[in-house]
Amino acid sequence: MRRISVGVLGATGTVGQRFVELLDGHPWFELSAVVGSERTRGQRYGDAVRWHLGADVPAYARDMELLPSEPGLPCEVLFSALPSEQAGELEPPLAAEGYKVFSNASNYRMAPDVPLMVPYVNPEHLAAIPVQQERRGWQGFILTNPNCSAIPLAMALKPLQERFGVRRALASTMQAISGAGYPGVPSYDILGNVVPYIGGEEEKVETEPRKLLGSWNGDTFVQATVLLSAQCHRVPVRDGHLLAISVEIDGAPSETDVLAAWEEWTPAVLELGLPSTPERPLIYRAEPDRPQPGKDSMASDGMGAVLGRLRPCPILGWKFSALGHNTVLGAAGCSVLNAELYFACTEGAQVQSAEEGSPEREIV
Amino acid sequence: MRRISVGVLGATGTVGQRFVELLDGHPWFELSAVVGSERTRGQRYGDAVRWHLGADVPAYARDMELLPSEPGLPCEVLFSALPSEQAGELEPPLAAEGYKVFSNASNYRMAPDVPLMVPYVNPEHLAAIPVQQERRGWQGFILTNPNCSAIPLAMALKPLQERFGVRRALASTMQAISGAGYPGVPSYDILGNVVPYIGGEEEKVETEPRKLLGSWNGDTFVQATVLLSAQCHRVPVRDGHLLAISVEIDGAPSETDVLAAWEEWTPAVLELGLPSTPERPLIYRAEPDRPQPGKDSMASDGMGAVLGRLRPCPILGWKFSALGHNTVLGAAGCSVLNAELYFACTEGAQVQSAEEGSPEREIV
Amino acid sequence: MRRISVGVLGATGTVGQRFVELLDGHPWFELSAVVGSERTRGQRYGDAVRWHLGADVPAYARDMELLPSEPGLPCEVLFSALPSEQAGELEPPLAAEGYKVFSNASNYRMAPDVPLMVPYVNPEHLAAIPVQQERRGWQGFILTNPNCSAIPLAMALKPLQERFGVRRALASTMQAISGAGYPGVPSYDILGNVVPYIGGEEEKVETEPRKLLGSWNGDTFVQATVLLSAQCHRVPVRDGHLLAISVEIDGAPSETDVLAAWEEWTPAVLELGLPSTPERPLIYRAEPDRPQPGKDSMASDGMGAVLGRLRPCPILGWKFSALGHNTVLGAAGCSVLNAELYFACTEGAQVQSAEEGSPEREIV
Amino acid sequence: MRRISVGVLGATGTVGQRFVELLDGHPWFELSAVVGSERTRGQRYGDAVRWHLGADVPAYARDMELLPSEPGLPCEVLFSALPSEQAGELEPPLAAEGYKVFSNASNYRMAPDVPLMVPYVNPEHLAAIPVQQERRGWQGFILTNPNCSAIPLAMALKPLQERFGVRRALASTMQAISGAGYPGVPSYDILGNVVPYIGGEEEKVETEPRKLLGSWNGDTFVQATVLLSAQCHRVPVRDGHLLAISVEIDGAPSETDVLAAWEEWTPAVLELGLPSTPERPLIYRAEPDRPQPGKDSMASDGMGAVLGRLRPCPILGWKFSALGHNTVLGAAGCSVLNAELYFACTEGAQVQSAEEGSPEREIV
Repeated sequence: MRRISVGVLGATGTVGQRFVELLDGHPWFELSAVVGSERTRGQRYGDAVRWHLGADVPAYARDMELLPSEPGLPCEVLFSALPSEQAGELEPPLAAEGYKVFSNASNYRMAPDVPLMVPYVNPEHLAAIPVQQERRGWQGFILTNPNCSAIPLAMALKPLQERFGVRRALASTMQAISGAGYPGVPSYDILGNVVPYIGGEEEKVETEPRKLLGSWNGDTFVQATVLLSAQCHRVPVRDGHLLAISVEIDGAPSETDVLAAWEEWTPAVLELGLPSTPERPLIYRAEPDRPQPGKDSMASDGMGAVLGRLRPCPILGWKFSALGHNTVLGAAGCSVLNAELYFACTEGAQVQSAEEGSPEREIV
Repeated sequence: MRRISVGVLGATGTVGQRFVELLDGHPWFELSAVVGSERTRGQRYGDAVRWHLGADVPAYARDMELLPSEPGLPCEVLFSALPSEQAGELEPPLAAEGYKVFSNASNYRMAPDVPLMVPYVNPEHLAAIPVQQERRGWQGFILTNPNCSAIPLAMALKPLQERFGVRRALASTMQAISGAGYPGVPSYDILGNVVPYIGGEEEKVETEPRKLLGSWNGDTFVQATVLLSAQCHRVPVRDGHLLAISVEIDGAPSETDVLAAWEEWTPAVLELGLPSTPERPLIYRAEPDRPQPGKDSMASDGMGAVLGRLRPCPILGWKFSALGHNTVLGAAGCSVLNAELYFACTEGAQVQSAEEGSPEREIV
Repeated sequence: MRRISVGVLGATGTVGQRFVELLDGHPWFELSAVVGSERTRGQRYGDAVRWHLGADVPAYARDMELLPSEPGLPCEVLFSALPSEQAGELEPPLAAEGYKVFSNASNYRMAPDVPLMVPYVNPEHLAAIPVQQERRGWQGFILTNPNCSAIPLAMALKPLQERFGVRRALASTMQAISGAGYPGVPSYDILGNVVPYIGGEEEKVETEPRKLLGSWNGDTFVQATVLLSAQCHRVPVRDGHLLAISVEIDGAPSETDVLAAWEEWTPAVLELGLPSTPERPLIYRAEPDRPQPGKDSMASDGMGAVLGRLRPCPILGWKFSALGHNTVLGAAGCSVLNAELYFACTEGAQVQSAEEGSPEREIV
Repeated sequence: MRRISVGVLGATGTVGQRFVELLDGHPWFELSAVVGSERTRGQRYGDAVRWHLGADVPAYARDMELLPSEPGLPCEVLFSALPSEQAGELEPPLAAEGYKVFSNASNYRMAPDVPLMVPYVNPEHLAAIPVQQERRGWQGFILTNPNCSAIPLAMALKPLQERFGVRRALASTMQAISGAGYPGVPSYDILGNVVPYIGGEEEKVETEPRKLLGSWNGDTFVQATVLLSAQCHRVPVRDGHLLAISVEIDGAPSETDVLAAWEEWTPAVLELGLPSTPERPLIYRAEPDRPQPGKDSMASDGMGAVLGRLRPCPILGWKFSALGHNTVLGAAGCSVLNAELYFACTEGAQVQSAEEGSPEREIV
């Protein structure tokens, strides 16, 4: 793949930092613009950022100059880590101008011509982009990734939907503090406590997976019929969202059937050999007390979901636990993966078809 | 009420300590025996116990001598804080010998002639005691209190069952470390983590409320038909079990109907004026982010349940949060309340009927 | 004592809330003004405050109207829980106007005519008030209480200073998050972490105890000669500041000598029978692993200091641990106690001298 | 270096696990024996161990069979992660039999013929081994590594000692729970709490650095004269021991002098190119709030110490913070490094002297 220049909007925030970390040494993407606010304009990235991911800002990004969000950013792709209050206004003009915007913000996730994607789950939604560009008259586009709790939920349901069909699922989430950004949750609220409320979260968990599990009919997205109910909690955990899920599956599959569906699931995207796909995006652990955020969040380098504890649910049929890293796959990592998928499918053809066929054809 | 001499089995453990705390200054019960293991026999209570509830062992108990669990304990009532491994063997001979055993252990909770009681919920189950005594040839009896997560679940469902009928309920619990006793959960397992498994807990939460919400037919207990499903988690919280509950109620009640059922619920036991009943055993909080274990566990002095966040569940109809203190109402406090109820109903008649009728008649 | 009308400046903040809690049912002081910002002006206290101390705003204060900080506040005393940024400007005009201002803010603590007081330690500093009033031409006055870590340090040193003399003390503090107010410390910074820095704290801990242990010479405060060094840390604890102290005492006292100095210390203020003095403001615990913030912060209702672990220090002679509740005695409680002392000494004479002599004479 | 076969004593414990992790892919050492207790004899390592370091037991060790601690272990080196209760008895016969025992246990650390070593600090103590072997008649030997808090303390003092001389140092430690092994600290004791006591720890921190900073005179170890005083605390942190240190240095060095001593310190061992030495074993961070265990424990892959906050101490001259990973450099990592040093110095000569001189000569 050719080197592709990328920028990060909201580069000093917690998700922005994760982008900077994930792009360090990326084989396709070259970070050429870190974009901050008017306030940080012109500052050195290493000076302006309060770094949260380990000890130090990656060396390659320290001396970059923070740019304001204005036309003329020196890159082709923009990864957006903007908060919703800003994303709504800033992203569309950039997409119009020609930037390929891969956004974490929730503003356009449910728009009828904007893909909401997890490459493992619905890579075929890429097909909406030309329609989006045509309808909106944009040179670029916006492609979004989902809420951090919606991802492991959708990943757990996808293999079941494919093989059996899924009717209803109930999820109770226990979400890490890093999901709230920085300064985020005051320690006074969460130390030794659980807060049974995260503003707007339950709505996202109940709607976004239906789009992810749905289809693109050439004109709009058709949502999956699965009915979802969520109760969201903040817990004193640093990284990793854990979900307790009960699910009603068509056709009364046995435990063996369900486990096989998960274990045999091979998302088509894995065949593309993208830089950020792990070997196993979905892991089932057989121990009685897993997954745990403290032990399993970084499974598959944070780019997968970990399931466990499958057992009968007296009400809906089956229940189990699911876990996903909320700021890697749950945020910046999913954006990067979406961008990798996009370029593999649109440009990879030329490069790869000569060598090993066009696996991406099977996807889009 | 006359002064009634009581003893505590397993007095040095965490639940035993809670008994010693709650019995400090109790108007009816006088602690006259602290019972430990063969190892602590003869030691001063204040020396043998590693006290966990605040700074100091209550002064009144410090100099008591730890007795072994043998016949001849100098008391009429025994509050049992024994672990299951010991309760199974030790409690029956004591009950046979004539002790009134109020037990926290799970061993006999589901036995067909042993009451499993929360006085707010099923005081009429007291009626099983004479049958138990006759069938087993015991002079005393065993009366049990439920699992600490089962209590707030049963208390939330009871008013709904009474007014509408309840078909199904799904609960995801987030349980405090104090529920595991001492040393209990290793810090290495739970600091900054959530463990999606507590051995044997889900079975208890799925079965015990059905007995609590069921009836005594003069011969055996008839379980309520409500279908329950539980997923239990340990969280890094000190005290207070939080539950995320979805419930299917008969007759499609409105939000107003459900709130009214909870707010108007007046358990008959409140009329008895027992020493340990709070003014309001069931509290509904209207804030969007309550109940929280860190703020609400000690509501009603730890002897009540706190509900909140009632909202529609797309799957079962209604969902909400419930919280109960796991070692006060969830353990020792419920035993003490059961004992108060027992004496009010069996001996209170003589005292109270002269003054103000026999409210307890309405109960048993 | 006559009923004295009091107000709280900064009433919605965390220290302000502690004032509202401590003044609930106070036998002398009647809360007649809760003062907030221009933004909350006119709001009901119960609506404007985000309550942190347990489940609910005390009932007596819920319906009070928040007043702005303007002349004409309906009270005689003002307890100030203002942050430093505001206290510097707002307190002096109020003191000038005639209010008796008891302040938690650090702005005037080290001023040469403003008492910095812990009633157990230096009640005689009250004598500076008339001088302050005369020099500044104020009708009222400002009297301050110290930094929350300085208090247990000063209380531990005072009996040693009185009996032996103290030359040098080194303290390493481990301070609770509640000391930073709300929202205060982001959970992302402190969950599972220790931060070896609290802005401005070390300077306060190194200077304030010298004023507390010093004297008022009729004209200015003479600081004690003890040399202090502090290293301050934030730890993931809710309430209670713990200090590891090494101290160099004059005259090489034995362990027995030191313990006796602490145990026999009877601050003169205890004889005044003030409403908020506990029976024992200084407690020494003999266990090897105490004091602990989780167990000992509320000793003496949070109005005392708890010491422990006295053992030889190879460098300075003796080392030990000290603990104090940072928002009770460490903030609002000390202000209330200072105010009680003030009124007992200035007005108590008339009341008490008839009955039982004038113990306050021994103090001022 | 030739492949050297190694075994781990106490392989299923937390330090044992760290050995198994660090030896994964080690270029010199090949794990050929995992040694457990009589109880786990014959079990598969992957089945017997409750793995704490991330999600999974390293693949290479899963199928190894646990051996009992008996003669005939199939290896040349034994890394001992045994608890003191067992190390005292088990290690000497193994050393006598010919095993090179690198031990974490405290039993023989202060013995006059047993090296207590951190390769950065006192590699020349290796010279005691032939004397140990001769006096004890052993074919093998015991070489120990220090207490986990003693290491960062000694590493911070070493450059100051070398350049200026160090007279006295006071340290208050805040130690992570992983230092207590598993199950270790009960969560009930430490969640939201600090415990000002760790059994035996202060003695170790006050004595071991004196041996580390001392010398081997050909016959025995001569301790450094620096006087040490320690206060040790357990804090709710997972990994990383933080120390607040005050130090009295000879010759009144300036801040620049002290910083230069640290920054210019180049331990001779770095020149040997050992597999486990990081580029910078001692890092000074200039930010006002570092080092923090949550951010800096894994600096230099956990094999270094991180310093910060150098500022004047009114009592001893200078104060600062120091941090070290307690189970990497603080335990297993130091043993591995000691073993690497040993082989580089005893066998490396043949290999390396041909190529690039014998830098190890400068060390021993």
